[in-house]
Amino acid sequence: DFLNALEEVKPLFGAAEEELEKRLLGGIIHFSPFINNILDDARLYVNQVRKGSTPVLSVALHGPPGSGKTALAAKMAIDSEFPFIKLISPEDMVGFSEMQKVQQLDKTFRDAYKSPLSIIVIDNIELLVDWVPIGPRFSNSVLVALKVLLGKQPPKDRRLLVFATTTERSVLQQLDLFSRFDADIAVPNVNSQAELASVLQHSGAFSESDQQRAIGEIQEITGSAEVGVGIKKTLLAIQTAKEDQDVPGRFARVMSQAIAANRGSYT
Amino acid sequence: DFLNALEEVKPLFGAAEEELEKRLLGGIIHFSPFINNILDDARLYVNQVRKGSTPVLSVALHGPPGSGKTALAAKMAIDSEFPFIKLISPEDMVGFSEMQKVQQLDKTFRDAYKSPLSIIVIDNIELLVDWVPIGPRFSNSVLVALKVLLGKQPPKDRRLLVFATTTERSVLQQLDLFSRFDADIAVPNVNSQAELASVLQHSGAFSESDQQRAIGEIQEITGSAEVGVGIKKTLLAIQTAKEDQDVPGRFARVMSQAIAANRGSYT
Amino acid sequence: DFLNALEEVKPLFGAAEEELEKRLLGGIIHFSPFINNILDDARLYVNQVRKGSTPVLSVALHGPPGSGKTALAAKMAIDSEFPFIKLISPEDMVGFSEMQKVQQLDKTFRDAYKSPLSIIVIDNIELLVDWVPIGPRFSNSVLVALKVLLGKQPPKDRRLLVFATTTERSVLQQLDLFSRFDADIAVPNVNSQAELASVLQHSGAFSESDQQRAIGEIQEITGSAEVGVGIKKTLLAIQTAKEDQDVPGRFARVMSQAIAANRGSYT
Amino acid sequence: DFLNALEEVKPLFGAAEEELEKRLLGGIIHFSPFINNILDDARLYVNQVRKGSTPVLSVALHGPPGSGKTALAAKMAIDSEFPFIKLISPEDMVGFSEMQKVQQLDKTFRDAYKSPLSIIVIDNIELLVDWVPIGPRFSNSVLVALKVLLGKQPPKDRRLLVFATTTERSVLQQLDLFSRFDADIAVPNVNSQAELASVLQHSGAFSESDQQRAIGEIQEITGSAEVGVGIKKTLLAIQTAKEDQDVPGRFARVMSQAIAANRGSYT
Amino acid sequence: DFLNALEEVKPLFGAAEEELEKRLLGGIIHFSPFINNILDDARLYVNQVRKGSTPVLSVALHGPPGSGKTALAAKMAIDSEFPFIKLISPEDMVGFSEMQKVQQLDKTFRDAYKSPLSIIVIDNIELLVDWVPIGPRFSNSVLVALKVLLGKQPPKDRRLLVFATTTERSVLQQLDLFSRFDADIAVPNVNSQAELASVLQHSGAFSESDQQRAIGEIQEITGSAEVGVGIKKTLLAIQTAKEDQDVPGRFARVMSQAIAANRGSYT
Amino acid sequence: DFLNALEEVKPLFGAAEEELEKRLLGGIIHFSPFINNILDDARLYVNQVRKGSTPVLSVALHGPPGSGKTALAAKMAIDSEFPFIKLISPEDMVGFSEMQKVQQLDKTFRDAYKSPLSIIVIDNIELLVDWVPIGPRFSNSVLVALKVLLGKQPPKDRRLLVFATTTERSVLQQLDLFSRFDADIAVPNVNSQAELASVLQHSGAFSESDQQRAIGEIQEITGSAEVGVGIKKTLLAIQTAKEDQDVPGRFARVMSQAIAANRGSYT
Ligand SMILES: Nc1ncnc2c1ncn2[C@@H]1O[C@H](COP(=O)(O)OP(=O)(O)OP(=O)(O)O)[C@@H](O)[C@H]1O
Ligand SMILES: Nc1ncnc2c1ncn2[C@@H]1O[C@H](COP(=O)(O)OP(=O)(O)OP(=O)(O)O)[C@@H](O)[C@H]1O
Ligand SMILES: Nc1ncnc2c1ncn2[C@@H]1O[C@H](COP(=O)(O)OP(=O)(O)OP(=O)(O)O)[C@@H](O)[C@H]1O
Ligand SMILES: Nc1ncnc2c1ncn2[C@@H]1O[C@H](COP(=O)(O)OP(=O)(O)OP(=O)(O)O)[C@@H](O)[C@H]1O
Ligand SMILES: Nc1ncnc2c1ncn2[C@@H]1O[C@H](COP(=O)(O)OP(=O)(O)OP(=O)(O)O)[C@@H](O)[C@H]1O
Ligand SMILES: Nc1ncnc2c1ncn2[C@@H]1O[C@H](COP(=O)(O)OP(=O)(O)OP(=O)(O)O)[C@@H](O)[C@H]1O
Ligand SMILES: [Mg+2]
Ligand SMILES: [Mg+2]
Ligand SMILES: [Mg+2]
Ligand SMILES: [Mg+2]
Ligand SMILES: [Mg+2]
Ligand SMILES: [Mg+2]
Repeated sequence: DFLNALEEVKPLFGAAEEELEKRLLGGIIHFSPFINNILDDARLYVNQVRKGSTPVLSVALHGPPGSGKTALAAKMAIDSEFPFIKLISPEDMVGFSEMQKVQQLDKTFRDAYKSPLSIIVIDNIELLVDWVPIGPRFSNSVLVALKVLLGKQPPKDRRLLVFATTTERSVLQQLDLFSRFDADIAVPNVNSQAELASVLQHSGAFSESDQQRAIGEIQEITGSAEVGVGIKKTLLAIQTAKEDQDVPGRFARVMSQAIAANRGSYT
Repeated sequence: DFLNALEEVKPLFGAAEEELEKRLLGGIIHFSPFINNILDDARLYVNQVRKGSTPVLSVALHGPPGSGKTALAAKMAIDSEFPFIKLISPEDMVGFSEMQKVQQLDKTFRDAYKSPLSIIVIDNIELLVDWVPIGPRFSNSVLVALKVLLGKQPPKDRRLLVFATTTERSVLQQLDLFSRFDADIAVPNVNSQAELASVLQHSGAFSESDQQRAIGEIQEITGSAEVGVGIKKTLLAIQTAKEDQDVPGRFARVMSQAIAANRGSYT
Repeated sequence: DFLNALEEVKPLFGAAEEELEKRLLGGIIHFSPFINNILDDARLYVNQVRKGSTPVLSVALHGPPGSGKTALAAKMAIDSEFPFIKLISPEDMVGFSEMQKVQQLDKTFRDAYKSPLSIIVIDNIELLVDWVPIGPRFSNSVLVALKVLLGKQPPKDRRLLVFATTTERSVLQQLDLFSRFDADIAVPNVNSQAELASVLQHSGAFSESDQQRAIGEIQEITGSAEVGVGIKKTLLAIQTAKEDQDVPGRFARVMSQAIAANRGSYT
Repeated sequence: DFLNALEEVKPLFGAAEEELEKRLLGGIIHFSPFINNILDDARLYVNQVRKGSTPVLSVALHGPPGSGKTALAAKMAIDSEFPFIKLISPEDMVGFSEMQKVQQLDKTFRDAYKSPLSIIVIDNIELLVDWVPIGPRFSNSVLVALKVLLGKQPPKDRRLLVFATTTERSVLQQLDLFSRFDADIAVPNVNSQAELASVLQHSGAFSESDQQRAIGEIQEITGSAEVGVGIKKTLLAIQTAKEDQDVPGRFARVMSQAIAANRGSYT
Repeated sequence: DFLNALEEVKPLFGAAEEELEKRLLGGIIHFSPFINNILDDARLYVNQVRKGSTPVLSVALHGPPGSGKTALAAKMAIDSEFPFIKLISPEDMVGFSEMQKVQQLDKTFRDAYKSPLSIIVIDNIELLVDWVPIGPRFSNSVLVALKVLLGKQPPKDRRLLVFATTTERSVLQQLDLFSRFDADIAVPNVNSQAELASVLQHSGAFSESDQQRAIGEIQEITGSAEVGVGIKKTLLAIQTAKEDQDVPGRFARVMSQAIAANRGSYT
Repeated sequence: DFLNALEEVKPLFGAAEEELEKRLLGGIIHFSPFINNILDDARLYVNQVRKGSTPVLSVALHGPPGSGKTALAAKMAIDSEFPFIKLISPEDMVGFSEMQKVQQLDKTFRDAYKSPLSIIVIDNIELLVDWVPIGPRFSNSVLVALKVLLGKQPPKDRRLLVFATTTERSVLQQLDLFSRFDADIAVPNVNSQAELASVLQHSGAFSESDQQRAIGEIQEITGSAEVGVGIKKTLLAIQTAKEDQDVPGRFARVMSQAIAANRGSYT
């Protein structure tokens, strides 16, 4: 029945795509030229694998919480149009033992090797290894399994591209996991007032003057023109503000708190 | 039979409400304007989720021991009138293994996803993860499960609001759990003499002059006009005092001990 | 069969009382006015619960080894004449797994909730959590279970008073267990020469002059008039001395050793 | 079958006595007046329990390796002529799990309570708790079981005397186990040249002049008149020396090595 | 079925050779005279075992990540033409428990003893022992099994040669595993510009002038003529560059990043 | 079946002797007078036990890796001609759990007690306890079992001699295991040029002048006349050198490396 359970979560392409699209519900807002660069780089890696010069390639997407890593990885995978796409997410492994996680990982890679062209997206890799900063603690066996699987040569005529997301690049470095990736892509926060304005504009919830008032108040409260908040939290703050009578005021307060909380926390 | 046991604790709405009302037996005394602000903020989050702009939102209620966190969370949940409300409490998990706790958590979230609008109240989150300051020790698997579940997107057309209570905000920060919440609410102690007077007044156990004598003696013993005791312990001290021949005197002694014990202990 | 074993140790009132009376074989000698104060305070808490103003109350008795904590808790419980009284002691749990201890604790509390008025005496709470100073080590799951159970609200119309004994108040503080008690009572050693004389007098084993000689010799050997030995060890030293030809001399030597061993050890 | 195994090791008195006598094969040589004092003190404790004034008494025999602790405890137990005598030794528990050890301990105490007068000898208590200085490591559950059992009151009209041996008094103190004993007896090495001469004399393997030569050479090699070797190793050195052509010379070399190895090692 | 699984992975010679050849897909480029020296030394050890003067010999191949250790070990094993060749790789043990790994190791050695001349290649020995630098953590039982098996004398008329690869020589030294090997071979990076030119030349993807431009740009970006990148990453960088419009420019950027990442990391 | 497995490895004398002779394939070269002294001392201990004056005696053979400890212990055991001889080696316990090791140890000792005169050889005692320097880690239960078994008195009329080998005397001291042995024997390296010449002479692979050239070159490379390499590695270096065209030159290089690696490593 555990094996049956494994079967049940076995993704057909359709199901996996649905899962990935759920991660894209907020769309991809091009609030900065970096977003285009990121998607361009990803296309390069997709082509390198597609053309067969490289049988296996792994790419780490790292950035602050809520910066859009999962959404971007989902976009890259869907755009590749590879015949086998699978999302490995801690969400689907709640209550799994370490051994069950390892077996699920192993099974996914073996499934991928059955298709000539495959993409595996591993979401929140630091949660997959049960990383907790106190101790620190983590699952040794899942970590070693990831290291081994990332370095494994696919069978003849099989090609695999792996995207993995993480908020904890330095943790992955300490665990000697980061260097196992062949390439990495940094995903940025909404950092400048111009980028923030672009997001507000796109939301359609602010008049031009409300935008300016909100951005001005944020600068006043935080004492700086730097923003540094993930696109995810920014979009949520817009929703919360919409419930308030004073939309721009509330938005400014919520964002300012987020800015203060983030200061100096991500390295 | 463990699975059966899980079924048995599965809350129908009625049962959950009863459980929540048990936490409200002491009522909600409005001894400070903060109490109103807290309940207003909660209503905002309830509306944000109800209107569907935000499919999932999590709010942490943190404050000193006995400050009324559980009672307030119960009040917020009941007032929402959402069709699915469930209380997750360590009290119902005494003797559960880590894996059983994780499965119970997972099941509760999956149950919630079956209703269009749901509230889950997670009480004493630091006890749920078996936190003990010596070591420190805690349940890694429950902690990771909470992180994963708090970040999980509900299925289409399902909306979930999570309230969690804790006395250990800084512990949750160390465990990198606190930042997983979308918002947080601070619950205060009975802090000023005016607030204490309001509570004594409401109890009906003190004459006007007894109130003044009691508050005066507390200031004398502790050498300060600051109170800083939770509403729960304050109400208990009133009960103990009522057994004594000298009600205000005993109340002053018990409260003074509580004030001394609290000094510098909560951060 | 484990469950059966649990059933077997399930105390009917009679059996529990017998167990408690075994702890009172040395009687309660009123060698100091503190003994009366302690018993008075206990009566206050018993009344507070009996009258129903407070559905649950927990009291910690703490003091040096052999100071009479268990005997006093037994006395308090018996004197309450509550219909349900149960002693939880590590002695009855030798060879239990952590999980079995937790289940026994949980069962005892659930049994207590079946009676309108209940007392649970938890003896040697630091041994119950398997506390060992090297490490330190202790049973996390028993500790968390105790915290949860001490904070649990009984069902409607059920009232529960908990007495717990410990030699390790500071350990309980480190474990964040001590603050879970609503009240605490300090149990003292036999501290002064007058108190020691009162115990010797009560034993009937010493002539007036032997008493004086013994107390004088102790002061001579230890170089101090302070005693600081538990009532339990004091009564045992009297028994050992009675086997010797030189009763007061032997008593003085044994007590002096005990005094030396205790110096600076209890905080 | 494990329970059966427990039954099989259940000692009838006869069997236990045989086991104890095996520990006495080297006899008790009265090489120092301390040996008499030790046996006298033991008789006092035996009487205290026999006369019924004290239902339970525990005595720790501590001293350097090979000083004769086990032989002396065996002698005390046999001389008591109590109807129930049982030896608990790590030798009989090789391959037992912690839980099996705890159950064996518990069973032995419960067996003892069936007899009106019982003695339990616990040999090498530091090995019984699996003490290893690196770490340090030890069996928490066996340790806690010992603490609980040493403090347990026997049933009515049952009396129990416990002798325990250890080379690790300071370890027992760190583990908070030593203070659980009601009394303790220090067992000394063969310390002076006079004591050593008395042992050599008793062995009958040395002429008067060989004795003097051996003792003289030891002083020469070690540069001191102090000996400080356990009676056990001393007797073994005599046996090794008897295989050599130069009996006193070899004895001196072996003893000198033992003396050097012991210097500063026992505290 | 676990035993069956073991049987299934039991290598016939053919299958093992195929596995080894998969590791040689990039060929062996003689970019430095060291490559010849390494293969010469290996032939010496092969002969020493073949001629029967030495029944068992173990050789450790150590070097930076991607320096070609596995490919070289595969080449050595295939060139020996020994009748029994087996590859032990963590890739084939994903999801194995420690005990299963130990049993697989034990089985492989016992299988090897059935052939008169055998080679076992142990790949990534630090992953086989589950080495993780944080902690550090590793599998004690696999480590001890390796130590024991490396030191084991084969049965009469059986001869065994062991090649093992690792990126973690200093870890193996700390674990007291490195000294168990009878000999060791250091595998170098592509270190000089001349060596790099030789690799680019061999790839056929660069014109003479592109080679010079790429190497020049690398020196410019890194500020040094030292290269220090493994042959594996160098070949991958060539493939990535081929996807870009500016082949030498992209190659220079990717190599420069790799050089920067490696600086000071391997000891 | 585990018990059956135990039975299968139960050594009849013949089988054990064969196992021991396998350890003696390189013979015993008398390259130093110490070798004779060691074998003489062993005969003394054998006689002490044979004559029955001492029912149990344990001897630790300690020395640097490859110094010939196992070969010497095998020689001593075979020469004793005792009716029961058994080798306990980690090689035969690969894949055993701690408990299985303990049971195998216990069984071997119990088997030995069935014979009037027995020898048990325990090889590589530090590997038997799974010693790993990082941590450090080791098997507590095997260690305690060894301590208990070494101190155990055989049944009447049974006599047992234990030889144990180890490279880790200081580890055994830290583990408080070394002092459990009644005697110890130090096994030396090939230390001087004269000793090395004696080994080369015995090998028959070097002409007189080649010997001198090899030894001269070693002194030149290492800058010292001290050798300090185990007999095992010395014999292996001779074999490797024989495969080279320049036999003395290669021998000098391999030995010099070994000398350098050993410097300061053994204490
Ligand atoms: N340019 C963008 N890049 C990424 N996401 C975007 C962008 N524009 C809008 N979004 C939306 O923002 C949200 C980003 O959330 P997402 O879960 O991908 O962030 P994350 O970095 O994976 O967060 P976490 O650190 O919690 O895993 C998504 O809803 C996505 O549709
Ligand atoms: N303004 C108020 N806010 C909260 N609780 C109140 C208030 N006024 C009265 N109460 C009563 O005070 C008690 C608060 O206890 P509650 O258990 O909610 O505190 P808590 O902070 O959750 O305690 P703990 O830290 O032990 O979990 C309840 O009985 C509640 O009915
Ligand atoms: N005033 C007194 N208070 C308590 N015990 C007394 C008093 N007078 C006499 N005794 C007797 O002294 C003994 C006290 O032992 P008790 O086991 O209660 O001490 P304890 O503090 O629980 O010891 P431990 O620290 O070992 O648990 C009992 O036999 C009790 O009958
Ligand atoms: N006065 C004595 N006291 C104790 N033992 C003596 C005495 N005289 C001779 N012996 C003999 O010396 C030996 C003492 O060994 P025993 O095993 O009792 O020592 P031990 O202190 O228990 O050793 P260990 O520390 O190894 O447990 C026994 O054989 C005993 O018969
Ligand atoms: N001279 C060479 N030596 C080794 N490998 C070479 C050489 N020339 C080309 N190659 C190719 O380079 C690649 C080396 O990769 P390989 O996996 O052997 O490196 P590795 O050191 O084992 O890496 P890792 O540290 O990841 O285990 C192989 O594809 C191999 O065919
Ligand atoms: N004088 C000698 N003493 C011991 N062994 C010798 C001697 N002369 C030759 N030999 C040979 O040298 C080898 C010694 O190897 P052995 O395995 O006994 O060493 P060891 O010290 O046990 O090694 P390890 O530390 O790896 O356990 C054997 O093959 C043995 O036959
Ligand atoms: Mg994400
Ligand atoms: Mg609460
Ligand atoms: Mg007590
Ligand atoms: Mg002993
Ligand atoms: Mg490799
Ligand atoms: Mg050896």
